[in-house]
Amino acid sequence: MAGVKIEVLDFGTPDYEVIIGQGNFTIKTIEDLYDAVYSSIPGAKFGAAMNEAKPKVVRVTGTDEELKKIAADIALKIGAGHVFVVVMRGAFPIHVLNAIKSIPTVACVYLATSNPFQVIVAETDLGRSVIGVVDGTPADHVESEEEKKERKELVRKFGYFGD
Amino acid sequence: MAGVKIEVLDFGTPDYEVIIGQGNFTIKTIEDLYDAVYSSIPGAKFGAAMNEAKPKVVRVTGTDEELKKIAADIALKIGAGHVFVVVMRGAFPIHVLNAIKSIPTVACVYLATSNPFQVIVAETDLGRSVIGVVDGTPADHVESEEEKKERKELVRKFGYFGD
Amino acid sequence: MAGVKIEVLDFGTPDYEVIIGQGNFTIKTIEDLYDAVYSSIPGAKFGAAMNEAKPKVVRVTGTDEELKKIAADIALKIGAGHVFVVVMRGAFPIHVLNAIKSIPTVACVYLATSNPFQVIVAETDLGRSVIGVVDGTPADHVESEEEKKERKELVRKFGYFGD
Amino acid sequence: MAGVKIEVLDFGTPDYEVIIGQGNFTIKTIEDLYDAVYSSIPGAKFGAAMNEAKPKVVRVTGTDEELKKIAADIALKIGAGHVFVVVMRGAFPIHVLNAIKSIPTVACVYLATSNPFQVIVAETDLGRSVIGVVDGTPADHVESEEEKKERKELVRKFGYFGD
Repeated sequence: MAGVKIEVLDFGTPDYEVIIGQGNFTIKTIEDLYDAVYSSIPGAKFGAAMNEAKPKVVRVTGTDEELKKIAADIALKIGAGHVFVVVMRGAFPIHVLNAIKSIPTVACVYLATSNPFQVIVAETDLGRSVIGVVDGTPADHVESEEEKKERKELVRKFGYFGD
Repeated sequence: MAGVKIEVLDFGTPDYEVIIGQGNFTIKTIEDLYDAVYSSIPGAKFGAAMNEAKPKVVRVTGTDEELKKIAADIALKIGAGHVFVVVMRGAFPIHVLNAIKSIPTVACVYLATSNPFQVIVAETDLGRSVIGVVDGTPADHVESEEEKKERKELVRKFGYFGD
Repeated sequence: MAGVKIEVLDFGTPDYEVIIGQGNFTIKTIEDLYDAVYSSIPGAKFGAAMNEAKPKVVRVTGTDEELKKIAADIALKIGAGHVFVVVMRGAFPIHVLNAIKSIPTVACVYLATSNPFQVIVAETDLGRSVIGVVDGTPADHVESEEEKKERKELVRKFGYFGD
Repeated sequence: MAGVKIEVLDFGTPDYEVIIGQGNFTIKTIEDLYDAVYSSIPGAKFGAAMNEAKPKVVRVTGTDEELKKIAADIALKIGAGHVFVVVMRGAFPIHVLNAIKSIPTVACVYLATSNPFQVIVAETDLGRSVIGVVDGTPADHVESEEEKKERKELVRKFGYFGD
């Protein structure tokens, strides 16, 4: 295991929604991320950041200075090449995730949550790699009939599946 | 490497097809997983389960009690937040994978197979993370011209690429 | 950590574009990868390879013998079941990534780059698993206003976002 | 032209955004239309309606009574089988059109506009058919360099393509 250092980055309990993924062609993708969120959510408040390897820099865009700073800080802390971060308030991943997944330079999305989260990073002689994400605390039992009923009521209370 | 425990979960050779991925908004996604499979496969026999972090519970749905139990057991054993599991019989991942990938709350799919499989999980102080999947035994050589010919005949024998 | 060996595979600085992902149903997917690239890029020069677990073999296709060999060598070196590799010259991931992501047997894409890259593999008693990729060297600062301006000019110089 | 009566339905200048398309399986699609809009736009105000042939009925859903009535009236006036209508305020077609197009039972979208619009309907002995839509008044010249410049400034003034 020489040459690999595993690090757990703890981001605590976010007061924002966060999406973390991997892509390429940073200078175009950063603008496409902006468009994906802005075109999906009327009046979106968000920040987006993406790491570039050459030059070594975090690209940043968005509509809200605080969220731009949060996204940039997460991207910089992760440090892995071609990783991107989107942070939002007043909207949920459901509103933008398909738009982000369909950007032609996006490879995959690791995480979309507002749970407390951690990113597990491996560091080699070349650079850094996201090898896993922790998205909230573990489930410890299978739902009961009562819990299933409450769950179905709750998602309908949020307005999903129509009247 | 303090703070990270790596565990290999061995699920043996499945007598079902299995899809494992990561998403969010469990109470809606569990119903969307049901719809994605049910709308894609006539008479689908399947179970789907997804972990929720708050409350800590495994959500379960499907059309077949045995497969619902298998899906729930896999999700519970993995334990990572926002992970989902779909198990099916009488159909293959090709029939549902695009429908699942396009659910707006699905972030990524780690695995879709009926090979013997293992899930590699990292455990931190916060929770658990899928960091890798082992999907069958390793390839050990590049196909020969004869093997390529057999492979092309086989996929056509299954009916793909027309007559 | 008994039973897990972590290995870093170093592929140096590629003189090609490379895409690495995970799928299933290798005998069909290898032909779909061919079609996804060939239908997306006029005159595409590429090689594609994908690991099969049973029989243990690397499937290979493409339009260019050298690139077919490179793709097969990467797939064989990674060794993980159901992993695929596409290598190209004269085109970029943006030209094929959505076509590849929408193949119904493709689960996820780990990497799309021409940066120096490494693949981090875990080996268990069953087989091998891609647990991470290193895509170039880490970013070390957030872009300045001047760097943002240069970035926007550059992507437009490449012809994106119209005249 | 015996047996075909062509009719032009004039809907004036709408004070809403309207999307008109063709689908099938009305009893599921009407809920999927609800979900497509509701999942795409936080706090969406909209109505959706869809014609069913057997029984002969206009299905209606939405979050706003006035917009539900407008959508239903348009669908009823068009009268063609399996046609659907979505009307919204506070959001634009860009926010929902991909979600609507990707509903597996949606065949096509004829119109998405807030221009004055007309729907051209053919009536046969069997029923009615949308054969065309008029979306605003005709263009009468090609844009000048000055108009191109203004167009590019305007889309950026709306916030697209980043800061």
